[in-house]
Amino acid sequence: MTQTLEPQTERTGSEGPAEAPPSPQQRVDGWLSAFESALTDGDVERATSLFAPTCFWRDLVAFSWNLTTVENRDGVRSLLTATLEAASPSTFRTSEEPTEEDGVVTAWITFETAVGRGRGLLRLTDEGAWTLLTTLYELKGHEEPLRGGRPMGAEHGARKDRTTWTERRAAEEEALGHTVQPEVLVIGGGQGGIALGARLRQLGVPALVIDRYARPGDQWRSRYKSLCLHDPVWYDHLPYLKFPENWPVFAPKDKVADWLEFYTKVMEVPYWSSTTATKASYDEASGEWSVEIDRDGVAMTLHPRQLVLATGMSGKPNVPNFPGQELFAGEQHHSSQHPGPDAYAGKKVVVIGSNNSAFDICGALWEHDADVTMVQRSSTHIVKSDSLMEIGLGALYSEEALAAGVTTEKADLIFASLPYRIMHEFQIPLYQQMRERDQEFYDRMERAGFDLDWGDDGSGLFLKYLRRGSGYYIDVGAAELVADGEVKLAKGEVDHLTERTVVLADGTELEADLVVYATGYGSMNGWAADLISQEVADRVGKVWGLGSETTKDPGPWEGEQRNMWKPTQQPGLWFHGGNLHQSRHYSLYLALQLKARYEGIPTPVHDLAPVHHLS
Amino acid sequence: MTQTLEPQTERTGSEGPAEAPPSPQQRVDGWLSAFESALTDGDVERATSLFAPTCFWRDLVAFSWNLTTVENRDGVRSLLTATLEAASPSTFRTSEEPTEEDGVVTAWITFETAVGRGRGLLRLTDEGAWTLLTTLYELKGHEEPLRGGRPMGAEHGARKDRTTWTERRAAEEEALGHTVQPEVLVIGGGQGGIALGARLRQLGVPALVIDRYARPGDQWRSRYKSLCLHDPVWYDHLPYLKFPENWPVFAPKDKVADWLEFYTKVMEVPYWSSTTATKASYDEASGEWSVEIDRDGVAMTLHPRQLVLATGMSGKPNVPNFPGQELFAGEQHHSSQHPGPDAYAGKKVVVIGSNNSAFDICGALWEHDADVTMVQRSSTHIVKSDSLMEIGLGALYSEEALAAGVTTEKADLIFASLPYRIMHEFQIPLYQQMRERDQEFYDRMERAGFDLDWGDDGSGLFLKYLRRGSGYYIDVGAAELVADGEVKLAKGEVDHLTERTVVLADGTELEADLVVYATGYGSMNGWAADLISQEVADRVGKVWGLGSETTKDPGPWEGEQRNMWKPTQQPGLWFHGGNLHQSRHYSLYLALQLKARYEGIPTPVHDLAPVHHLS
Repeated sequence: MTQTLEPQTERTGSEGPAEAPPSPQQRVDGWLSAFESALTDGDVERATSLFAPTCFWRDLVAFSWNLTTVENRDGVRSLLTATLEAASPSTFRTSEEPTEEDGVVTAWITFETAVGRGRGLLRLTDEGAWTLLTTLYELKGHEEPLRGGRPMGAEHGARKDRTTWTERRAAEEEALGHTVQPEVLVIGGGQGGIALGARLRQLGVPALVIDRYARPGDQWRSRYKSLCLHDPVWYDHLPYLKFPENWPVFAPKDKVADWLEFYTKVMEVPYWSSTTATKASYDEASGEWSVEIDRDGVAMTLHPRQLVLATGMSGKPNVPNFPGQELFAGEQHHSSQHPGPDAYAGKKVVVIGSNNSAFDICGALWEHDADVTMVQRSSTHIVKSDSLMEIGLGALYSEEALAAGVTTEKADLIFASLPYRIMHEFQIPLYQQMRERDQEFYDRMERAGFDLDWGDDGSGLFLKYLRRGSGYYIDVGAAELVADGEVKLAKGEVDHLTERTVVLADGTELEADLVVYATGYGSMNGWAADLISQEVADRVGKVWGLGSETTKDPGPWEGEQRNMWKPTQQPGLWFHGGNLHQSRHYSLYLALQLKARYEGIPTPVHDLAPVHHLS
Repeated sequence: MTQTLEPQTERTGSEGPAEAPPSPQQRVDGWLSAFESALTDGDVERATSLFAPTCFWRDLVAFSWNLTTVENRDGVRSLLTATLEAASPSTFRTSEEPTEEDGVVTAWITFETAVGRGRGLLRLTDEGAWTLLTTLYELKGHEEPLRGGRPMGAEHGARKDRTTWTERRAAEEEALGHTVQPEVLVIGGGQGGIALGARLRQLGVPALVIDRYARPGDQWRSRYKSLCLHDPVWYDHLPYLKFPENWPVFAPKDKVADWLEFYTKVMEVPYWSSTTATKASYDEASGEWSVEIDRDGVAMTLHPRQLVLATGMSGKPNVPNFPGQELFAGEQHHSSQHPGPDAYAGKKVVVIGSNNSAFDICGALWEHDADVTMVQRSSTHIVKSDSLMEIGLGALYSEEALAAGVTTEKADLIFASLPYRIMHEFQIPLYQQMRERDQEFYDRMERAGFDLDWGDDGSGLFLKYLRRGSGYYIDVGAAELVADGEVKLAKGEVDHLTERTVVLADGTELEADLVVYATGYGSMNGWAADLISQEVADRVGKVWGLGSETTKDPGPWEGEQRNMWKPTQQPGLWFHGGNLHQSRHYSLYLALQLKARYEGIPTPVHDLAPVHHLS
């Protein structure tokens, strides 16, 4: 339901002596009208004054051609000063009736800019706009062929030059990379690359996704066999095609893999399997990359204008150097190389690390009768999967949320509307609830000697994920093994290895046939260093993290995740990844940025983030 | 929104002097309450009196364990007398607010029976219930694991005896047909077999779908290359997983094929490709079939209790016998064997027939520069695809219908709620509209000498489809070729063939390098004759058709499509098929009938249809 805007003055006229307080709808209409009027007049000061002194405006590509969050009136003023003229925003409307709770009015809004259409979420208090989310969802003249605008498919009428869908697809495949260059090359064909590929396909941007594995989905198939999604189904949908209504809550990895493979095909994503990129360089003059690839043994060079690294938010493995590794007579490998438990029944295994991978690997090894010791080097945040699902996600991503009208698309925007700066305030109480609910479990973990934490500020898992992408385990069972002593626990740094043992700093000596280094991953710009050059990796700087000045997320404050889905200091280089939720939602904004560049639509980037950390 | 039932007497009390006429909600509540009260009292006469003298009650499995439509109070009385005690219906409620239009109140209802839950649609007039649709949608204690009840997927917790999804799937595949017999064998893995397979899987009925082709979807891939769906996307969804929002309106055949393949895997339908059934026999004593199959060259015998023929509503090809066929030196084949146009450029082709297949084949041959003559032997009903989509289906299956809240599921029930007996009354005006809209086209067809019809009573395509499954063409372009003379038209019966020509009854001699017999298909019980025996085929009788006493649909009136999705005179033998809409919707009722039998739930069949025609 759209609403007609009326200037507030018209409504506060002489209609009666005892006027009721304005409804949420009236308040929002008044605010939007005043905001639009100030914007139309180019009056930044007036527009700024409509915001509360403490406020957050998050813009995803609509005003800033960037993902950016500004704070307080200074931030609003600076964003508007820089972007107002080019964005030329107008037609602010509510898209459904606003609601009020605890003095905060919440409104779904739509608007237009010079080049596109946007939607957002506004929260008003008595002081003015407290939070504003503005997002671009389509470019004018480049609307996606969806729903009422979907393609006809059949070309009715008889014609001698008819080509069929199959013939056109075959011709396209034959040309791509040979006579036709992809505008966008996406390296990495997991959920991130595939979701982006689907969106680019839908937007008519010639793109190619390449992946080293033989089939889409092999990124999942190749992992240890008991792996399941740790996030529930409602959080995991891909764009355009939702999982069916009988899809399991926590899908097993091979089922996810099959889905990704068929999704790729159904969405007609140009996808080259068994393909690795070996070298890339950027030509400033032509604005083109040269990317050397190996496609199933055949060397080729591609010339995309845009290069997206979607090789996984985990970046490159951190393989530690310990004295004596070269003497160790058993097997040793990083968790990313771990083949699963089958070969290790009856063997002594030492797993270095105590986060997700370490627990998953320990659990699977224990199930296969290995003698497993976990080495905890620093504290870990653990939440039970079911508690996380019910308390952490249930309000936005669940069957109940759907029944209450919170679609996946709405949930994504509500989530995105909470400024990272204050997100911990919303998260802390949720994790307090989880702690209370599972207190008995946490007591047992501590009695077993396990060091627990809840994030530096008690804000729990999701912020740890956003800040550092590590330091936690979503318990699907393996933590109980540590609590029960079924998986042995040792603590402290590794001092060195001997022929048969791992020796810890306190002198503890652990016998081992296998050592697994579940020691995490570096920043994603490590991929850029390998593929392009250290110079480019350093120019781009650290990828991921918010600058929260918490452990492994040094400041200064960035307001957004560093370098993710947004322009970087290296023209034509982009980073994409994250969990299924992020792959789904943020691929939209990345795709729109790439589409605009492909179409030659001006994309003046506001406040390109400076680099503070190299990795 | 469910409503509390109040006996009508309570509402017509002493609440005021000037009582407003009852709202649609009150009228429906009153009717449902009176109906339920009569049913609870076992008072068939009182329940019957609540129906209008002219009325239609269509029951899909809920009361009758059959697909049946009864007419007028006699029919209602007889249905209730036979089924009331076992069905033990109760808890009739509206599921949303009823609406009124032109004196007819329409209400969505829900109810329960002794063994299941149902939904339906009630239309009330001043005389009582005019139409009532009652359908079963689930069996108590056997609810489908969907949405809020979906499976968890991951088994949290560490356990030494863990098996993974992949291992369980592999073990199941290995056992099926060897150590574990399928309860249901579905012969034919097109959209019908696959949709039924998905529902049976979902209901936990051990079933197996077999198909002669190498891959699911090959039923479409193997057809001529320009084939597209002639029905629009909104009409074509399969159960549980809708086509994505960017799916084309008229999908090309290879894209449909990929979707079916994808769907089969995602839904985990047990499906054996490259498998044909060669012989089947039923053992009355054990209630088991013995079905000999050839699975990729390996002979096996399966022992299902239920056998479903889903080999296509078209049944066996009608290959005509004309004198001189053995003398003809060119190529000749039935349309079902036609390989597509590629090999026939520059050749003279005579296509016998003037329905869908004939037009499709003529059009594709013309596009490939063949010299094509169509032989029309009897009149054909033609509608333009876009007119059919907009006028014929738009109110129920379209983007606009969706926006108005008519989901696919609701559209299916609305469609099902229109009694076949009076459906022509609703259809005739639609086809009059189409005729007016495309009058210029029809004039050109007639000027070209083409014999047009609109069905015996002017009710058009859908009823022709239901009555005889033939006699029409949905024009996607090829009719224009006949109108323009690009495809030549000849008329009349074929008298004989010579070495080089087809000779018609009037002596016209048509030169031919290829003769295509687009001469249609026999009744589906022809499959039963081939696979089982002529005796069983004759016991079952004609499949398809309503008994409308129109061309190729002899009476007496059946009220439902003969033998489709319902019990037949041969225990354990079922027919399934039709277009995507029917495959989606009616597979539910067939699956519930099979599930009930599998679980040993009593399924007293009301009014098993007698056989009036052998083919």
